[in-house]
Amino acid sequence: MSKTIVLFGAGRSASRLIQYIQEKSIEKNWRLIIADRDEELLARKQGGHRGTETVFFQLQDEKLRGELVAKADLVISMMPAHLHITIAEDCVRLGKNMLTASYVSKEMENLHEAAVDKGLILLNETGVDPGIDHLSAMKMLDELRQKGAEITCFESFTGGLPAPGVTDNPWQYFFSWNPRNVVLAGSGGAVKFRQEGKYKYIPYHQLFRRTEIVNIDGHGRFEGYPNRDSLRYRKTYGLDTVPTIFRGTFRRPGFCKAWDVFVKLGMTDDSYVLKNDGSMTHREFVNFFLAYHPGDSVELKLMHYLNIPQDSDIMEKLEWIELFSNDPVELEEGTPAQILEYILMKKWAMKPNERDMIVMFHKIGYMLEGENKMIHASMVYEGKSRDNTAMSDTVGLPLGIAAELMLDGKVQQKGVCLPITPDIYLPMLEKLKEFGIGFQEKEVPYQS
Amino acid sequence: MSKTIVLFGAGRSASRLIQYIQEKSIEKNWRLIIADRDEELLARKQGGHRGTETVFFQLQDEKLRGELVAKADLVISMMPAHLHITIAEDCVRLGKNMLTASYVSKEMENLHEAAVDKGLILLNETGVDPGIDHLSAMKMLDELRQKGAEITCFESFTGGLPAPGVTDNPWQYFFSWNPRNVVLAGSGGAVKFRQEGKYKYIPYHQLFRRTEIVNIDGHGRFEGYPNRDSLRYRKTYGLDTVPTIFRGTFRRPGFCKAWDVFVKLGMTDDSYVLKNDGSMTHREFVNFFLAYHPGDSVELKLMHYLNIPQDSDIMEKLEWIELFSNDPVELEEGTPAQILEYILMKKWAMKPNERDMIVMFHKIGYMLEGENKMIHASMVYEGKSRDNTAMSDTVGLPLGIAAELMLDGKVQQKGVCLPITPDIYLPMLEKLKEFGIGFQEKEVPYQS
Repeated sequence: MSKTIVLFGAGRSASRLIQYIQEKSIEKNWRLIIADRDEELLARKQGGHRGTETVFFQLQDEKLRGELVAKADLVISMMPAHLHITIAEDCVRLGKNMLTASYVSKEMENLHEAAVDKGLILLNETGVDPGIDHLSAMKMLDELRQKGAEITCFESFTGGLPAPGVTDNPWQYFFSWNPRNVVLAGSGGAVKFRQEGKYKYIPYHQLFRRTEIVNIDGHGRFEGYPNRDSLRYRKTYGLDTVPTIFRGTFRRPGFCKAWDVFVKLGMTDDSYVLKNDGSMTHREFVNFFLAYHPGDSVELKLMHYLNIPQDSDIMEKLEWIELFSNDPVELEEGTPAQILEYILMKKWAMKPNERDMIVMFHKIGYMLEGENKMIHASMVYEGKSRDNTAMSDTVGLPLGIAAELMLDGKVQQKGVCLPITPDIYLPMLEKLKEFGIGFQEKEVPYQS
Repeated sequence: MSKTIVLFGAGRSASRLIQYIQEKSIEKNWRLIIADRDEELLARKQGGHRGTETVFFQLQDEKLRGELVAKADLVISMMPAHLHITIAEDCVRLGKNMLTASYVSKEMENLHEAAVDKGLILLNETGVDPGIDHLSAMKMLDELRQKGAEITCFESFTGGLPAPGVTDNPWQYFFSWNPRNVVLAGSGGAVKFRQEGKYKYIPYHQLFRRTEIVNIDGHGRFEGYPNRDSLRYRKTYGLDTVPTIFRGTFRRPGFCKAWDVFVKLGMTDDSYVLKNDGSMTHREFVNFFLAYHPGDSVELKLMHYLNIPQDSDIMEKLEWIELFSNDPVELEEGTPAQILEYILMKKWAMKPNERDMIVMFHKIGYMLEGENKMIHASMVYEGKSRDNTAMSDTVGLPLGIAAELMLDGKVQQKGVCLPITPDIYLPMLEKLKEFGIGFQEKEVPYQS
């Protein structure tokens, strides 16, 4: 008997997922229904594939939403994260399993009991980060704990970056996913983590100054800045008493101290709106944040204010991004963060010949038979083209594989859950390896 | 016929107001009813005064609140600012005039039409800042405009500080009003002002680095940091097109760069809670915000992180406040801001022999008959003792005088209003002068 997958949201990061499902659909006897509000996109995604239907859909259309969910054996939501809950409520009401790549929200968490009562699976955080990080970390942690090890340190980093050699952009960065999320990364609250038994708190405005350098053999050096709340992973990973727990995001070295300029100036603020009477330029935008000194250039005022030497690579990066140019800001209004995103998009949009890369790194310290030991695990995966990015593959493939496991009845958890149990992570990691997404592990000398 | 004043809230800053009303009560045939939830405080404020009654009152007691308002010819609220609205709604319903020293909230503003319809006056912002600043600024601005001047620059600063010579505290600061408001000063959004026709925006975390030094003859040097939103005063003061508008808060020079340490570390964050298992010390609290380096002292880590020379007066100030001591933090939990307030209170509470001082300064630039001119106006007022502070006098006297004007029918405005019209500011400034609260004005050479 055929099984029906209903996918809500067909945007950029869904492409590899759709391809995965379409490729398996004959062998597995799957039918795919893609629901989106972009008809042109739907036509492209249908792509003449026999088993794929498309439906024009807007989230407010409660009736259609219910009809679509009712048809499904599995619902996958690739909508913006805050919209999952509406679909999840339909799934619980209509008794359907659901899959997302997003963090579990409080509202989603609240559906747990009801989902368990109906024997349903609402599997979340099954993309790349969160997703592949959970799979790989939990496999390592479980193996160590089975050997009797006590975990003393857990650090984990992920980054989406340009593939090596594809760009001479001095930032070594471009937007391979939602630019707005990159601009706002880390904002909205203090960072919390734990190091050697001490709690540590970093305000947003110091985030990009508190970085850690990591070297990955054959791939060079990366710079990690801390993610918002590392402490929540203590419970998820069974690490409630671990002395060190830290999660971060990778950039190439030098990125963070240049990005720090935007933070320090106040350009990542999303809380108030600047009106543009038509005369705002990049340079004017910068000048909003600098003290008034009629004789000095914007560049000089900025260097003086933030104590940046004239020959610093920071200035090279800011100039490359055309921050000081008289190019117009062609927005009627915007928050500082929106205007910064607008300026960055001009240079950081991926070009046709560019390819991205996903880098993930775990550092696990443990005590075994009285000895301190450490493992480094790394995964580096390069995208094939601008349209087949590493980002899309590493989000779409885990979702596709998880969908297959769920439809094959291989997932044992019930309720609102994460891919952190062996019934899920073992087959997923096995399959991901077939697609070239695998981890290199190595023992290294212990280092606190 | 006697008139009844109902005062809600009898806390510290109400003492001079109560005294003013009591002193005038026989001559004016006033009756004063003080409503508060602190019975011990009420007994003290009653002080055997014949015309004063006291009532134990809690804001939730809707019935009593209505009864009290019904008895009043004038209602004064000295409750915490967010509680005014409940009382204001009663006043409008029951047709009573009202007076506060607080900023007009959106909810208060919304009562304007209803109050005008009933011919009521809801006079707000009639303390010191806001209050005396409005009176004095509007008088100067109106006089200049009557002469035909075009205003080109308006800057205004107020500070509550120790009186000269009363303390050797290297911060030259103590808490003469609500400590929590001092700790959170400036937080919660970007600072906005305008300078020489250019809009300027400063994120909170840079606020204490963007200061201006002001010298007041005979009173020494002060350091002003910008207030949250200077732009709102453009409308209030009729300065919609003024090229420069800036409002700030005075401290003594050197305060801001030391306070900046708390901001930079994240100690003024009020958005998350730290639990204290009983072992937290001042020193531990500092260490939460510093990177882990097992061999280094907390002092060294802090100096290195924030680039502070060892012999800086910043370190002297931090040491004086016992920031690095092993004294316990005797709170079960608290936000960083609450813990910082707790630590500061130990040293910054006013001592029995200490006296405070209020300093206000306006700088107004204008163009008259083709010439650029400038006036400086300053007001310095010292408190008499810890119990008779300049803060309490400069809040209570304007309120008392405004109450008198309102009860005498001398206020012509209706609705939700500010003391920015001559019917209010002229008699108020006249009376304040009798109490030693007056401005020195002088022409100075124009300076942009």
